[in-house]
Amino acid sequence: FQSKLPNVPTSIFSVMSALAAEHNALNLSQGFPDFKSDTKLIELVNKAMIQGKNQYAPMPGILNLRKIIVEKTEALYGVSYHPETEITITAGATQAIFTVIAATIKKDDEVIIFKPAYDSYEPSIQVFGGKVIPYQIYPETFKIDWSEVKKLITLKTKMVIINTPHNPSGQILSKNDMQQLAAILKDTNIVLLSDEVYEHIIFDEAQHQSACLFPELAERSFIVASFGKTFHNTGWKVGYCLAPSALMEEFRKVHQFNVFSVNHPTQVALADYLKTPNNYLELGDFYQQKRDLFLSLIKGSRFEFTPSQGTYFQLLNFKNITSEGDFYFAKRLTKEHKIASIPISVFNQDNLDTKVLRFCFAKTDETLKKAAEILCKI
Amino acid sequence: FQSKLPNVPTSIFSVMSALAAEHNALNLSQGFPDFKSDTKLIELVNKAMIQGKNQYAPMPGILNLRKIIVEKTEALYGVSYHPETEITITAGATQAIFTVIAATIKKDDEVIIFKPAYDSYEPSIQVFGGKVIPYQIYPETFKIDWSEVKKLITLKTKMVIINTPHNPSGQILSKNDMQQLAAILKDTNIVLLSDEVYEHIIFDEAQHQSACLFPELAERSFIVASFGKTFHNTGWKVGYCLAPSALMEEFRKVHQFNVFSVNHPTQVALADYLKTPNNYLELGDFYQQKRDLFLSLIKGSRFEFTPSQGTYFQLLNFKNITSEGDFYFAKRLTKEHKIASIPISVFNQDNLDTKVLRFCFAKTDETLKKAAEILCKI
Ligand SMILES: CSCCC(=O)C(=O)O
Ligand SMILES: CSCCC(=O)C(=O)O
Repeated sequence: FQSKLPNVPTSIFSVMSALAAEHNALNLSQGFPDFKSDTKLIELVNKAMIQGKNQYAPMPGILNLRKIIVEKTEALYGVSYHPETEITITAGATQAIFTVIAATIKKDDEVIIFKPAYDSYEPSIQVFGGKVIPYQIYPETFKIDWSEVKKLITLKTKMVIINTPHNPSGQILSKNDMQQLAAILKDTNIVLLSDEVYEHIIFDEAQHQSACLFPELAERSFIVASFGKTFHNTGWKVGYCLAPSALMEEFRKVHQFNVFSVNHPTQVALADYLKTPNNYLELGDFYQQKRDLFLSLIKGSRFEFTPSQGTYFQLLNFKNITSEGDFYFAKRLTKEHKIASIPISVFNQDNLDTKVLRFCFAKTDETLKKAAEILCKI
Repeated sequence: FQSKLPNVPTSIFSVMSALAAEHNALNLSQGFPDFKSDTKLIELVNKAMIQGKNQYAPMPGILNLRKIIVEKTEALYGVSYHPETEITITAGATQAIFTVIAATIKKDDEVIIFKPAYDSYEPSIQVFGGKVIPYQIYPETFKIDWSEVKKLITLKTKMVIINTPHNPSGQILSKNDMQQLAAILKDTNIVLLSDEVYEHIIFDEAQHQSACLFPELAERSFIVASFGKTFHNTGWKVGYCLAPSALMEEFRKVHQFNVFSVNHPTQVALADYLKTPNNYLELGDFYQQKRDLFLSLIKGSRFEFTPSQGTYFQLLNFKNITSEGDFYFAKRLTKEHKIASIPISVFNQDNLDTKVLRFCFAKTDETLKKAAEILCKI
């Protein structure tokens, strides 16, 4: 038996979470909250199960959930999607991303991605025989020179993937970034995959620049979002994808044969829970306090940083501490100092090591205090 | 924008369930129970949520669930799988099937499938540029001539997909079938995908012939199973895949970037619920009674049938009733007679119409009585 994917490694999130567990370390590596999901939401899931919502949901998701997401999108961005034909509920944002790529990428198609990139993009493209065209961005600003991006476009370019707020950097794309991207894509057939799973986690009064706000982007965009990130239940695995109907039709051709449909009682519960906009509108403030607490506590440490603008991740630069490779250092921190993080080189082109680690601050204040205490001693 | 998959239609299950809903018809089309999931199992999911099992499960599934499935497999078939490396929990069996194909099939690889075939196989193969090599089987027996199958094998054959108990025919593969398949595959690198989602729904004292029982098959097999079928909650979307570690390693390379992991509280609940083997050991008897009730009630009708040997589906031949096409007839039954079924031509090569419809008998006795009453009048 010959492997189809000889070079695909185990996800860094599995690797670091397992190492954290093995060494009984604080786990600030894989991105998930260590506090509880809202009891009200749990009660709604239980109610849905008791009411018998335990058989297949419709393939695109239950209509009530699709409707309320579309209403939320309209309220937040002033953009209308059609609940019947322009939204599909997915088994988490990762499944949405994989399915977008499955529905569009064939052998030798080129996909432009920005590195450091979320670790699922590249192998997902490879599974379909596509070719990754990387554009490396650098700390501290992670700014993109769009004239350079334009040069990467060829006749084979099928897709561009963006991610704002950006994991792992915690930086966001500006209105100007989006406009420049729109200008580049305007007269092409290139599809945009816009990973916006942290849309509600944005700080310092900044505005999330959703792809749907720019008509020349919206018409070609699959926008991916996540309830796990928004409602503190990453383990429920519910997200969604928005796209114009012609694109959504292609998405569903694959979705129906990938997972068919998504956990039904959870969808019923989310449809109800989303009726209270404060459940997500206050999320930015909530996480801004976490970020500020964490940063104030590690100010005295030898790590350097630019504050995160969005997501629940903070990069810390360790060049003043050691010249060790970031993966080696991350493992050593886990084993010896009992704190786990994500080394950024695994997300970079050619494993470029920029001496930064990613820490997740979706944690109780108590966990953040313990983490800062450790980091200040390093 | 040019479609990658111009010929992929909407799943027949979505089509017929939507038509049933529109016409307020009894829905015996898509396969799902219309009775309740066990309250005990629902309580266990609720307990898991309250206990805070709401963040990412480990990528391959929670170890407790993997362990108890491996124990069940050992108890039923006397075959050992390693819980760490040879089993992965999936977002339903469909996701397992898609992921097996994703992990193994490249452009121009050939996959032998038996038609009528479950509708996800063929488009899933196409998404990866693979080529479907169909072998058509026919009512009433749906017997396979393995010497003919052997002739389909070429240097490009990468995979064979079998399904026992078989959906939609309700027939099962015998020990002899499996031995002949084993003889064909023995000295090849061909991988077997064995869809065994109805393993516990088998009638008349027959024994399920799992691929794992035949060493020459087991060593090359991905075996796919479903909790939705077994525990009457198709909408929870939890299944699993068993395979030798070298194959499972390939599976996980894709799984981790397709869905990453599966709904966590449900996994916790299932691990507990599986401790009571009667929860699945009595399933065959339970559905045999349903089959027998349904068949006894339609004996006086103009439909002809061979009793289902497994699955919760029964084929009914309508050649004595009409010469209409099966899809047309199925739609007319839904609209005019208020009963929905699945036309088998959609699963056949070149839409061959053998004048059979598939009815799901995973229904309350009351529903089955109402259905039979309608069918007897046609
Ligand atoms: C799917 S596990 C990874 C979670 C996550 O989004 C992250 O840590 O970046
Ligand atoms: C995934 S919906 C189809 C359910 C099913 O297995 C069937 O009806 O055959």
